Amino acid sequence: MRQIYLDYSATTPVKQEVLEAMLPYFTENFGNPSSLYTTGSLSRDAIIKAREQVAHLIGAKDKEIFFTSSGTESDNWAVKGVAESLKEKGNHIITTMIEHPAILRTCENLETKGYRVTYLPVDQDGRISSSQLADAITDETILVSIMTVNNEIGTIQDIPELCRLSKEKNRNLVFHTDAVQALGNMPIDVKTWGVDLMSISGHKIYGPKGIGALYIKPGTRIANFMHGGSQEAKRRAGTENLTGIIGFGKAAEIAERELEGHIHHSRELRDYFIDQVTRRIENVTLNGSREHRHPGNVNLTFDFIEGEAMLLYLDMNGIAVSTGSACSSASLTPSHVLTCLGVPLEKIHGSLRFTMGDFTTKEDLDYTIEKLTEIVARLRSMSPVSKEKGW
Amino acid sequence: MRQIYLDYSATTPVKQEVLEAMLPYFTENFGNPSSLYTTGSLSRDAIIKAREQVAHLIGAKDKEIFFTSSGTESDNWAVKGVAESLKEKGNHIITTMIEHPAILRTCENLETKGYRVTYLPVDQDGRISSSQLADAITDETILVSIMTVNNEIGTIQDIPELCRLSKEKNRNLVFHTDAVQALGNMPIDVKTWGVDLMSISGHKIYGPKGIGALYIKPGTRIANFMHGGSQEAKRRAGTENLTGIIGFGKAAEIAERELEGHIHHSRELRDYFIDQVTRRIENVTLNGSREHRHPGNVNLTFDFIEGEAMLLYLDMNGIAVSTGSACSSASLTPSHVLTCLGVPLEKIHGSLRFTMGDFTTKEDLDYTIEKLTEIVARLRSMSPVSKEKGW
Repeated sequence: MRQIYLDYSATTPVKQEVLEAMLPYFTENFGNPSSLYTTGSLSRDAIIKAREQVAHLIGAKDKEIFFTSSGTESDNWAVKGVAESLKEKGNHIITTMIEHPAILRTCENLETKGYRVTYLPVDQDGRISSSQLADAITDETILVSIMTVNNEIGTIQDIPELCRLSKEKNRNLVFHTDAVQALGNMPIDVKTWGVDLMSISGHKIYGPKGIGALYIKPGTRIANFMHGGSQEAKRRAGTENLTGIIGFGKAAEIAERELEGHIHHSRELRDYFIDQVTRRIENVTLNGSREHRHPGNVNLTFDFIEGEAMLLYLDMNGIAVSTGSACSSASLTPSHVLTCLGVPLEKIHGSLRFTMGDFTTKEDLDYTIEKLTEIVARLRSMSPVSKEKGW
Repeated sequence: MRQIYLDYSATTPVKQEVLEAMLPYFTENFGNPSSLYTTGSLSRDAIIKAREQVAHLIGAKDKEIFFTSSGTESDNWAVKGVAESLKEKGNHIITTMIEHPAILRTCENLETKGYRVTYLPVDQDGRISSSQLADAITDETILVSIMTVNNEIGTIQDIPELCRLSKEKNRNLVFHTDAVQALGNMPIDVKTWGVDLMSISGHKIYGPKGIGALYIKPGTRIANFMHGGSQEAKRRAGTENLTGIIGFGKAAEIAERELEGHIHHSRELRDYFIDQVTRRIENVTLNGSREHRHPGNVNLTFDFIEGEAMLLYLDMNGIAVSTGSACSSASLTPSHVLTCLGVPLEKIHGSLRFTMGDFTTKEDLDYTIEKLTEIVARLRSMSPVSKEKGW
């Protein structure tokens, strides 16, 4: 059966070129990068190169990149590290209601330890209001953490502007952005953006799982999160994930080289898909912003039916999509992101996320639209509620 | 040039069989294990299998294994997680002076947060005294963390006895052991040992770097360390390191299957090496216990010369060995382990660690001994101090 993968925001396949860069470092050049002998220095050299590749993709210097095990670890480090380091300066943290669980759960954890957290709401498009952000900032605010691109609805925040505004209000606060979904999907430049911390991850840009990084602007006050050996300039302990780092580096190099083409390709497919689905299926709504949107993200609500049922029927036809995000898909709680947009509960349950990437073709989408049209019609005919029948 | 790797305690090459198990999950079955569709369930199934393989190697149930990014993360989680969870019960932690930096630095960090830490000394063999341990335990003691096998000198502690004794003294404390160096090098059974927490890692047993696990005995009170998504039964957030987990699982399966042979092979080589070197080179001392010793560990002090110089000369001959551990080899501070054994500073600087593994042959050792004999003679002839010349 034909297999169509439309869940690139959950994870991506490792590109062949990336895998090939990694392979020698499993079995041959496997030396511990901390070792003094030649095998160790081959590993060190490979890490130096990878660090440069990752740094370059976001306009950073190589010494500002600290490898972690995931975007989640980077988020934990950013939030907990700043909270610990600046606790004498204040106890107030500002974030948004639509952040990734790695930020939300971490902030909730800090609330049990005497920190105060403001969770900013978003408008119907999923954008926060800069005046609400400005109003929330006080002298006690030590950290503002706002994601660049939302993982469920693909909404892009204006991070450079939000960062500028935050620092204008309180020059001592640290500005962090979770850019995991942004990386490789839009141009990023930490210098012109002005952020102090940025979380990124390998497996969303055709690199391996299990590797992430935290960008730290020099001078940023942030305590260590992982204690132990002297790796990563004594900022993040643990034997380096050698092949993971190399894979992330190569994936970053490719992402930079192909950024424009990737964005163009994804955007064309995205717009074609939105256009076709909304034209051919009735009572479908696009969630999130049309304008400020991840180039490969389509999040749709299909009235009168369950997203999970659609997902399973699509899967039976070889099509992989997602309800909400991968991180929360095992739980049955409704998407916190769609809830924040003001989408009613019954509509949230009828929502699906389709995310396109480098291996997606127009033919894949045509096949998906055809199957989707059939499935929606079938499920609606079985549904106890529908427009005709009335809720 | 002939390449001889004698640093298996720093890291091991990934075995071919392990790499082959991992390969399909990079490019084909790359689905996010949290996803609901078929590609995701293939990943989930692979993780279920790997969890069983890892669990089986230490006599645990699969649900008691929580994957992390490294032994270091497992150690951080164990110590910080118990400290946070039991802070109402007490603030006292007991560990040893010869632990891995992942324990020592973490404990030092907790000392800045109101915890009291007892660092137990060791005898000349590197063993702690059970009566000293018993004496140190109070009603305030919440955690005892003692490594099973030391990474530098290979000394094995009697964990089952130390655990029994600790719980006898205070039944509410949590007993953790860092078994990273023990895994695959001795039989481990968490049930008969009675430990509550155990840290293990993949890259010391011919699995990939960047993957570890924490064994948690059911009912153990330990707060989460990595907050975010619902992965690992909501105990450890972050997209699963799919290929890392699969590699760790396969490596664990092989380690269990070949445990007896591996131990026998390593021990024969170890004893042959110790015997030959001490017979052919004068003024050499074995550090650590002869009896309670990692099967592949040889840690030797060569009087009158510098370990680093030996290391570099050996490297020029294609032989990879280590001064101390890989984790601290980049730093110039003398080994804290050898210091604790009472080895004088000048002798510490003349120490080298040779660690043997599955691909080591007797011929490798003969070649190494030959080169080592030459190098030691040469360096001693250049040394300003020697036995003949007097210190």
